Order: sequence, then C-alpha cells, then structure tokens
Amino acid sequence: MFAVTILGNNSALPMYDRHPTSQVVHYDEYLFLVDCGEGTQMQMNRYKIRRHRINYIFISHLHGDHYFGLPGLLAGLGLNGRTEDLWIFSPPLLKDIIEIQFGSANSILPYPLHFVPLEKEGLLLDEKKIMVSCFAVNHRVPCWGFLFREKEKPRKLNREQLDRYGIPVSFYQQLKLGQDYITEGGERIQNEWLTFPPEKTNSYAFCADTIYDETIADKCKDVTLMYHEATYLDDQWERARKRMHSTASQAATIASKANAQRLIIGHFSSRYEVLDEFTKEAREVFPHTDLAVEGVTYLVKK
Amino acid sequence: MFAVTILGNNSALPMYDRHPTSQVVHYDEYLFLVDCGEGTQMQMNRYKIRRHRINYIFISHLHGDHYFGLPGLLAGLGLNGRTEDLWIFSPPLLKDIIEIQFGSANSILPYPLHFVPLEKEGLLLDEKKIMVSCFAVNHRVPCWGFLFREKEKPRKLNREQLDRYGIPVSFYQQLKLGQDYITEGGERIQNEWLTFPPEKTNSYAFCADTIYDETIADKCKDVTLMYHEATYLDDQWERARKRMHSTASQAATIASKANAQRLIIGHFSSRYEVLDEFTKEAREVFPHTDLAVEGVTYLVKK
Repeated sequence: MFAVTILGNNSALPMYDRHPTSQVVHYDEYLFLVDCGEGTQMQMNRYKIRRHRINYIFISHLHGDHYFGLPGLLAGLGLNGRTEDLWIFSPPLLKDIIEIQFGSANSILPYPLHFVPLEKEGLLLDEKKIMVSCFAVNHRVPCWGFLFREKEKPRKLNREQLDRYGIPVSFYQQLKLGQDYITEGGERIQNEWLTFPPEKTNSYAFCADTIYDETIADKCKDVTLMYHEATYLDDQWERARKRMHSTASQAATIASKANAQRLIIGHFSSRYEVLDEFTKEAREVFPHTDLAVEGVTYLVKK
Repeated sequence: MFAVTILGNNSALPMYDRHPTSQVVHYDEYLFLVDCGEGTQMQMNRYKIRRHRINYIFISHLHGDHYFGLPGLLAGLGLNGRTEDLWIFSPPLLKDIIEIQFGSANSILPYPLHFVPLEKEGLLLDEKKIMVSCFAVNHRVPCWGFLFREKEKPRKLNREQLDRYGIPVSFYQQLKLGQDYITEGGERIQNEWLTFPPEKTNSYAFCADTIYDETIADKCKDVTLMYHEATYLDDQWERARKRMHSTASQAATIASKANAQRLIIGHFSSRYEVLDEFTKEAREVFPHTDLAVEGVTYLVKK
C-alpha cells in the first residue's frame, strides 16, 4: 500500500475540531510522519496509527502549527518504551528547540534521536523501494516540500518469448533489470523482445505551506497524488499573497501544471467553518481534487 | 464565582481521550490558567473557555505534559488579535524555550508577554480580592504548587446594634475593617459589639506533581478545595515513589492532614482506562474526594 492519512488539515488556529498540519505516509511496512502540529499524538490515538512503526519524521518548517506536537510525540514514544533509532529531517534550529526542552525536563529519551538538517533540495532517503527528497517551496520562513517516489520497478518477463528463445532461468533477474541476452553463439537478443515495461512508479508530493509558485509544478512533475495547501478561498487572494499562502484555485493550478493525477487540499484557515467552496473552486481548475479530511486515508496506489 | 475547570486530567501519555494537565481557575472576572499540556487550546474550544480573559498563566514545572500546549496557545492568542499583557509564572528556563520557538518562526507576538521566574515560595500575585502564592512540592525537577486564596473579607454590620448605639453611617466602612468606634464622649465601643465576623475566605490549592510529602498539608492548611495528583493506585506505591508521584490514598491522606474541605484527584497514569478504583481508595481515607473530570467545573464557593 502507498497512501497518506490526514491527521490535521487546518491552519494555525485549531477550530471546528480541525487540527494543525500532520500526515502519515504509508508505504508497505514504512510509516513516515510529515509535520506534527499540536495534538498529533492524540490524533494518532483517534485514528489508530501505529506510531512505534514510524522511523522517519519530516518537518517542513518551523511555524508552530507544523511542529508543536513533536516534543509530546517524542516524549510519548519514550514512555511507550521505544528503543529504535528515530530520524528527524527538519530545518536546523529544531534540534536546538528539542534539546532545550528535554534538557530542562532533565529527561533523556530511551532511543537514539538523529537530526538531519534541511539545507538544500535533493534526496533525503533512499530505501529499497522508495526514495524521499525535499524541494524548496516559498513561504515566510525556509520551508520544504517532500516528494515520496517509488523506485523504478523491474521489467516484467514475457514468458512466451522466454520460451521461444530458450532463455535460462538464471538470467531472468538480469532481464528484469533491463539487460540484453547474449546467446552462446554471440547473438544479442534485445531486452525489449523478452520483457514488458515495468509497472508505472507512483509518487506523493507534500507541498507544505507556500505562496502560489509555479516552480513547484516542475518539481512535482507527473506526480500521482499531490497535497497542496489551500488556506483561503479565491476572494482572499490578496491576503493569501501577503501571508504567503495559496487559494483553492491556485492549488488546483499547480496540480494541473504538474500534470498530477489527483490533488488533495488542506491547511484551511479557521475563518472557514464550511469547506464546500474549496472543493468547488479547485475543481473548476482541476477536477480530480478532494479535501484532505482528517482521519481519511488517500491511496496513492492500491 | 470561585471555581476550577479541568481541561486535562491525565499524566504524560494522552490516552482514552484524557489529556495532559491543564486547569482554569475562575474567580469573579478573573480566569487563571494553571499548567498547559499539549492540546489545551483544543480543550478550551471544546469546553468554551474564554481564553482572551486569561491574563495570568502558572506553569508548575517543565515536564512536557504540563507545558507543551503553551506555545500553541500563545500563538493562537496572537492570531486572535490579543493586545493585552500576559504574565507567565514558571520555572525560569521556560522563557528561553518560548523565545527560541518564536524566534525560529520569525514571529513576534502582538501582545506584551512577561515571564516571572518561580524561585522561592511566597506571594506571586496580590489582586483586589484574591492572592496567589506558590509553594514547593517534591518532584523529579523543581516543581511548584499554587494556592489561590481569597483575601480577608469585611466584617458584617449588625444593624440592630448600630441603631442601639447610634453609630453614624459615615463610620460603617471603618467598622467593616474592624475598627472600634469612639463616641463623642470618648467612650470606646468594641467592634465586636457592632459587627458580625466576616464571611469565611475560601481557597484552592493546586498541588502539581509530587511524591507523598506531608509538608504540603501544612502549606495548604484549611484549604477549601485541594487538587492533588494521584498518578497510581495504591498497589503501585513503589513505582509512585520511584517516579516521585503519589497514589490515590496518599493524595487523600494529604487532604485529610491539611484539613481540606474537599479533594479532587487527577494526573492518572495511562495504564488505567477505568478510574473507579481511584475514588474508592481515596474515599477510604478522605470521603470528600472526587475525580477531576475533564470538562467539569468544581466550585470552591458559589
């Protein structure tokens, strides 16, 4: 499974039982936490997230609504008896903040905590089947989006052709990786004759907090599922620009320019109790848009 | 009204929809916040606490379950347009923690924030009708209880006697303050002949996180309502001692020794889903005990 569960979809001020930003990205056995607004550990209780399986946490920027829940989560993992290493990818100052907090509590976490400072765009994590990279977005403080992208998959064997050419089973693995087969007589048999193209890779882009910025579309080109903030409706576009946030139709425009397959929008301002208009405005630009609803899991692929 | 509303009654790990410590003390027009665990601002939404009326915040100690909700609350007050001064009484390091957090967010609160470091026992606040003082309790880090005590009230006039002695109305105010009346002929009329004793003063003691410590009973002598932590049931008394927390019957013993009128207990360990046994064990020692239930307001006096 490759999917994302929304734990918080509101902007800074929690209202209407909506919470500040937090998401969990599922990929097979992995659980990645993206942002950790206040109350994230309670939301994990509510939606039965198995927090002990989280090994990597990504914090987009140091506005409180994206990380004020982190110290409590870290303390809670310790109380739960965690001993496995935990990595936090974040703007560098977060390390100082966490250290002063645990230092002043005279408290030592029972597991190793590693901080990886976000300082430039690029690859953060290269796991067996998935890679995570960060890309700069455009907000009032340094702010990072995160792209979860499946690795290129092996090509699929064409059994009929394999039989026809009498390819030995011992070479199947190389075929999956794209190699041509050389017969004993020195004849080259093209890989493409023996295999089908690999399954398409899927990807999820978390675009964090950002003003409308078309470079984000380039950075997330052809993404399967995009999360883009939509703090305001379109009539508040000037406020959005001033606060360096986006409107619903701006989010949809980025998804469209990125050629995304699907968009979810969130980070709604607490000025909006009802959210229907967000869907409406975004779908006029990009029909495959949904609200990022707390507690809901959105599949990137099945 | 003099009362306390419980916003969080659990210990460090939020569970079963119970939250880390936070309480609001109401006194006439005042609203005092005592501790501010993660999620306090959400609990304020849930229980309709008018947070803009809070001018004084008291933080007992720097374990996260007592203050991790503070940065979010402070940010939220700013977003709500607060301009009035706000005072925080806390262990000194909290100032550094808050400053690094708001500094790294490039964010300036739109209201003046004052920190008063807790360093010795004594009076913190002397308002018109109520005083707040702090007293040391006994925990793993420096930790403070808070005593909210009504000021001595004016004596009540005995109308019948006033008429009998022909006391002029202009002297009534002095009578209420306890002065004797001297007649034109130089005769002293004892205040006690002309007035009744004042209404009893009421008080609320928040005893924070503490190991069983009988000095707390002395410090809260004759308190009207006491909150005392009861992290564990009595069979866990060794764990309680080791973690420097209290059991239900220990809390009740302190209330009894303090000659409190009534006790509420809280800070329950997340190992307990059902809390009935806490009431039972405490009431065996001190019958006027209740659980501190989230969302419930306990009257100190009507």
